[in-house]
Amino acid sequence: MDYFYGPGRNHLFVPGPVNIPEPVIRAMNRNNEDYRSPAVPALTKTLLEDVKKIFKTTSGTPFLIPTTGTGAWESALTNTLSPGDRTISFLIGQFSLLWIDQQQRLNFNVDVIESEWGQGANLDILASKLAADRAHTIKAICIVHNETATGVTNDLSKVRKLLDEYRHPALFLVDGVSSICALDFRMDEWGIDVALTGSQKALSLPTGMGIVCASPKALEASKTARSVRVFFDWKDYLKFYKMGTFWPYTPSIQLLYGLRAALDLIFEEGLENVIARHSRLGNATRLAVEAWGLKNCTQKEEWYSNTVTAVLVPPYIDSTEIVKRAWKRYNLSLGLGLNKVAGKVFRIGHLGNLNELQLLGCLAGVEMLLKDVGYPVKLGSGVAAACAYLQNNIPLITSRI
Amino acid sequence: MDYFYGPGRNHLFVPGPVNIPEPVIRAMNRNNEDYRSPAVPALTKTLLEDVKKIFKTTSGTPFLIPTTGTGAWESALTNTLSPGDRTISFLIGQFSLLWIDQQQRLNFNVDVIESEWGQGANLDILASKLAADRAHTIKAICIVHNETATGVTNDLSKVRKLLDEYRHPALFLVDGVSSICALDFRMDEWGIDVALTGSQKALSLPTGMGIVCASPKALEASKTARSVRVFFDWKDYLKFYKMGTFWPYTPSIQLLYGLRAALDLIFEEGLENVIARHSRLGNATRLAVEAWGLKNCTQKEEWYSNTVTAVLVPPYIDSTEIVKRAWKRYNLSLGLGLNKVAGKVFRIGHLGNLNELQLLGCLAGVEMLLKDVGYPVKLGSGVAAACAYLQNNIPLITSRI
Amino acid sequence: MDYFYGPGRNHLFVPGPVNIPEPVIRAMNRNNEDYRSPAVPALTKTLLEDVKKIFKTTSGTPFLIPTTGTGAWESALTNTLSPGDRTISFLIGQFSLLWIDQQQRLNFNVDVIESEWGQGANLDILASKLAADRAHTIKAICIVHNETATGVTNDLSKVRKLLDEYRHPALFLVDGVSSICALDFRMDEWGIDVALTGSQKALSLPTGMGIVCASPKALEASKTARSVRVFFDWKDYLKFYKMGTFWPYTPSIQLLYGLRAALDLIFEEGLENVIARHSRLGNATRLAVEAWGLKNCTQKEEWYSNTVTAVLVPPYIDSTEIVKRAWKRYNLSLGLGLNKVAGKVFRIGHLGNLNELQLLGCLAGVEMLLKDVGYPVKLGSGVAAACAYLQNNIPLITSRI
Amino acid sequence: MDYFYGPGRNHLFVPGPVNIPEPVIRAMNRNNEDYRSPAVPALTKTLLEDVKKIFKTTSGTPFLIPTTGTGAWESALTNTLSPGDRTISFLIGQFSLLWIDQQQRLNFNVDVIESEWGQGANLDILASKLAADRAHTIKAICIVHNETATGVTNDLSKVRKLLDEYRHPALFLVDGVSSICALDFRMDEWGIDVALTGSQKALSLPTGMGIVCASPKALEASKTARSVRVFFDWKDYLKFYKMGTFWPYTPSIQLLYGLRAALDLIFEEGLENVIARHSRLGNATRLAVEAWGLKNCTQKEEWYSNTVTAVLVPPYIDSTEIVKRAWKRYNLSLGLGLNKVAGKVFRIGHLGNLNELQLLGCLAGVEMLLKDVGYPVKLGSGVAAACAYLQNNIPLITSRI
Repeated sequence: MDYFYGPGRNHLFVPGPVNIPEPVIRAMNRNNEDYRSPAVPALTKTLLEDVKKIFKTTSGTPFLIPTTGTGAWESALTNTLSPGDRTISFLIGQFSLLWIDQQQRLNFNVDVIESEWGQGANLDILASKLAADRAHTIKAICIVHNETATGVTNDLSKVRKLLDEYRHPALFLVDGVSSICALDFRMDEWGIDVALTGSQKALSLPTGMGIVCASPKALEASKTARSVRVFFDWKDYLKFYKMGTFWPYTPSIQLLYGLRAALDLIFEEGLENVIARHSRLGNATRLAVEAWGLKNCTQKEEWYSNTVTAVLVPPYIDSTEIVKRAWKRYNLSLGLGLNKVAGKVFRIGHLGNLNELQLLGCLAGVEMLLKDVGYPVKLGSGVAAACAYLQNNIPLITSRI
Repeated sequence: MDYFYGPGRNHLFVPGPVNIPEPVIRAMNRNNEDYRSPAVPALTKTLLEDVKKIFKTTSGTPFLIPTTGTGAWESALTNTLSPGDRTISFLIGQFSLLWIDQQQRLNFNVDVIESEWGQGANLDILASKLAADRAHTIKAICIVHNETATGVTNDLSKVRKLLDEYRHPALFLVDGVSSICALDFRMDEWGIDVALTGSQKALSLPTGMGIVCASPKALEASKTARSVRVFFDWKDYLKFYKMGTFWPYTPSIQLLYGLRAALDLIFEEGLENVIARHSRLGNATRLAVEAWGLKNCTQKEEWYSNTVTAVLVPPYIDSTEIVKRAWKRYNLSLGLGLNKVAGKVFRIGHLGNLNELQLLGCLAGVEMLLKDVGYPVKLGSGVAAACAYLQNNIPLITSRI
Repeated sequence: MDYFYGPGRNHLFVPGPVNIPEPVIRAMNRNNEDYRSPAVPALTKTLLEDVKKIFKTTSGTPFLIPTTGTGAWESALTNTLSPGDRTISFLIGQFSLLWIDQQQRLNFNVDVIESEWGQGANLDILASKLAADRAHTIKAICIVHNETATGVTNDLSKVRKLLDEYRHPALFLVDGVSSICALDFRMDEWGIDVALTGSQKALSLPTGMGIVCASPKALEASKTARSVRVFFDWKDYLKFYKMGTFWPYTPSIQLLYGLRAALDLIFEEGLENVIARHSRLGNATRLAVEAWGLKNCTQKEEWYSNTVTAVLVPPYIDSTEIVKRAWKRYNLSLGLGLNKVAGKVFRIGHLGNLNELQLLGCLAGVEMLLKDVGYPVKLGSGVAAACAYLQNNIPLITSRI
Repeated sequence: MDYFYGPGRNHLFVPGPVNIPEPVIRAMNRNNEDYRSPAVPALTKTLLEDVKKIFKTTSGTPFLIPTTGTGAWESALTNTLSPGDRTISFLIGQFSLLWIDQQQRLNFNVDVIESEWGQGANLDILASKLAADRAHTIKAICIVHNETATGVTNDLSKVRKLLDEYRHPALFLVDGVSSICALDFRMDEWGIDVALTGSQKALSLPTGMGIVCASPKALEASKTARSVRVFFDWKDYLKFYKMGTFWPYTPSIQLLYGLRAALDLIFEEGLENVIARHSRLGNATRLAVEAWGLKNCTQKEEWYSNTVTAVLVPPYIDSTEIVKRAWKRYNLSLGLGLNKVAGKVFRIGHLGNLNELQLLGCLAGVEMLLKDVGYPVKLGSGVAAACAYLQNNIPLITSRI
């Protein structure tokens, strides 16, 4: 039973959920198991060890929570902060907006630093706020590494630099939902206190697992944080970690085996190669956009995202029409423009288990779509630009050399 | 890759997660999809409509939350109650204990009515408390329909009767985790305000979906409830329900299709037939226990559970050994005794997509296990008792007549 | 476990085995069943009825044989002919060559009509042979509808016309392996006596089912045909058809359910729409080849194949290198040149459950490959030509309008 | 979509096709691949090497043929014999009958040695025939190792002994369809020239792969054998083996990966442990039959089969009713009585990936069935007898100790 079946593969280019590789689909194709038998803890142990590698942390403590990215946010915040705590949060797009909304509803005192959508986090203002905060009233810096709505990647190393410069003890909380496992991410090196992602993004799993990683400092903070929490409480996890049974409540057996397979694939390809592949996909997409004569919603190269590109359409075109038509005519799923940029951008997600020829099929589809809606694109132009770059840069597949 | 492979099927007789039927495994064997395309809302709409049938409600509003039973509890409580609110909660086993713990940590004023483990909720005390509460300080009655740790089923209709008798406006919140879709459950008729279950129980899905159903009165309460919540906030769901896109954050595509298949199977069998099958499985199990000369942890027939049987072992036997050995020698997964009854009981879960011959294989295994650990069981006795009952009571499979 | 894993989807563009759609993979994801229970005959009955639709026959009798195309050939021949019988067979490429080889090894007297590879069957010679054969020594005309090695489609209606013109009673045996369910095929209208295909071609299933359809005249011939056969003997099938149990030996349960799903998808799309889609894919591919400045191995438009295109490379290029490199660098599977055209052509299969954007991804890959091996292709040129055509011709997906 | 769905697992106790273990179902849950890419030959190479282990041969040459057991028979015969050749064949049940029928239709001169159904091959007569055959007119001894219709296992070592004793050069051809991978089988030690099995039997795969293994002597014979064959011709395989591409025509990618997984499971358990497990299952079944007061169709202990038990019912009972009712009421699939023993026996298959508790569930079901049809069985008696034996004999699962 499929709803609205179309022939051939669906071309899934939303910035999540993304394509699940066949070996992962296979690994999850299984019956339930007793999670109190010795098998599940044995499996969990390898996962907790290996998942740290994608965060690039050795000192962090990971939590595999049966939830979504939104829940992972809540886990990060409620375990480390108390009501009334001052947080600094950057408003640069829909997802940072939603996180700020969550922070406010959780009763933090959110100090919002807003940028125009398409720009990155304004770190100059952060600097001045840190400078001014001698009393250390700022308890946490909350930042979205990669704003999925606008395709903007923030430079986390600079945030750390500023915190160090001002010797500021604020916790450094990072939403890595559309970055971790696809973009360069270094939890330990950048002194990140809580980092989080969701299974359905670069890990290329189904939705349902929020992965949160806490630094020792964050764990320490969790002991005194007074935000009310039960389901998201790290304490319960830590108690079961100590007992070696790992789970305070029932995990999804399927997602555990899926995560095992997903990590195996990432390690087989090599995490650095995965990141390099995303860089190629990002570059190729941007070259195509340029060849079409369209603008990237992201205003400066320093913020270009290698996991999603938000493409600005001319004012006489409604980007929503492009997305609808993509699905109706080409079996292509593109991302809508959200909120402030609704109707103005469409988004090409290029993250997860994806290769160059898949992207080129998508780009060819976008060209036809642009023509469909009356934009005078030169057919083949974007693909040509992308190919010219890719043909010089795609490496041989390591296992096949 | 399997951990600790054993030949043949694993005999899964923990009271959840339970066996997933093949058609459901098949339905979930799929790639991700864009949940903002028209297909997912169309699918979701049918699910929200149909899921009400398993709650037996027409006026309730269901929420399919990417979480576990623990999260579903939190959703039920935080959306309807405010910190400091007085709840009445029945402590009769490990799961009611955990729910009470959650209520306390969420800062409610929990009025605990305790029973010996193996007994049901003490409704006489409830009656007296209701009688005394002229001021209506009791905001909610929280009750676990079926306590999975002891195999005790509470009579919800009596709770409603008492509330009516005393014209008490308290909300009636029910954990139906190991009951809904297996035991007789009537949300509307019994005036339940919030009922909840988890996907991995009688629905026979993987873990990962908490299903919560709210009465109009509960929805009304949610407008003024001051418990802090974001991820679990019904408001966000209701907003997206109104928009027709249904999802405030990313759902698991696989679980949605899985739920569709699970409901289809339940409706094909007929919900009443599903409940009757659980009754047969429960009766057969209890007859076997009796034939073995062992006692049911459940002290009275009125509380007997048709989804799980906790079997008391003689004092000279450690029930944990039975469970360990079941897995090591017979590829059989039984439930451990928890907390107060650890070492004293083992549990046979008999819920979900399960038939009589599967149960008989399990019962035969338990007989050998009892012998293994030195209990003087007469081999074949329990199976004989169960068969004598079942051979008289199993109907022909409707589709095969 | 995958051999030589590469990130992202494998782009499968060999002319078979082809991509299996997800609903079909799902349908086959199942345990074995007793094929003597009532369920399998009930399923088989619908299959035998529905499979006739893809042959466009109402009078034919289909056989679903656990074998490959080679076995289906053998079934067609041995059931209708006797050793020493004169057959006319057209040698136009590797697969017609192999069939001729089989005919010779089965001891028929094969009268071979050879054409240059890249040309279709020489029907003028057929005409003269029919004209000369007053004695009706020709017992069968054996023809490959679509020669997969060269991408040549023969005109079967003309063969029928000639047979009618000369009132020749020869049996008309057709290999429809890479045509049926993708190209226009009309068993009854064209008076075909045995038509056959394989599951892994346009039906988009795994390999393992040879589907043979026999006209009443062919069935009649089978009663006296003296070729030795047991496994392939239609008689055994017919005996079990009569008994209503259908299977003389064990069928693959998985392929039966897979065929059910495959047929359902074809009927949902509409067989005529499936054929039109293949026409679009063929046209688009040929436009790309032309834009690259390369030649189609098929020498005349009348023989152009809509399921596979064999592309001639310049003499200074080894087409085998292209195919190897496609797999090693781009995770793209192209077809090799076979036998006489080895090294000279590479093949793009465009059949089965495939859509336009998938093809465009492949074409973009071929452009990069051509550049890789030193051919001065203008990147984007083929995709541009294909897009210009497709953007005008792709219909909306019916279920999504 | 399932035909005639019943709740819970289907209890599959026909003697093939048998239960597929989950890891094998998972391994086959995949898209097609280009079988001419380097991956498939690499995989095939490991399969051909490893499959020899289940035949216990180092000198044999295996063929993995896309066919069924019937096709495997034909492959064994046509590659080694010429029309008119004298074969000795033992008629002891339905499957030996069918093989004899095939031999006759393939124009061999079949010298049939018949036994009563329920008895093994009459080796005394074989001895006298060998003794008499000074001229070596007997070209092959054809024997079914385990007759699936009656549950009779022949002693192959005795056949070899006789051949050696009379220094007779006849080929020794063995149908191991329901024995290999379940019963003790030693191709090299017993001097077997062709042995064969089918994927859906003890290997626990779907139907569709006939596995044939030829000794050097058989390969030598194939060079001069004049039986007509193409699809089944070993020559084509050997040609592609030499080229390293392995496949003369398209294999099922899914079955190749499935076979890989199936062999891995068998080697993980240990082939000797697999055989011991079948011995336990056979013994347990026979003890149950005895306890029920019923007779085994197999007349002597020396012929008892550990893969299937044919149970004789009293004359006043129609065994067909038992089989029908098993499926209709208990979701249990039993084997019918075939041909001479139709209505007189029902069969319990106990082969493949199966464990003791699964069998006990089946035995309990049979007890209820016997009662259903009016046989005065003591419920629990068979299970008790089986349990008494099994509880003493089941080892711990190696991986879980």
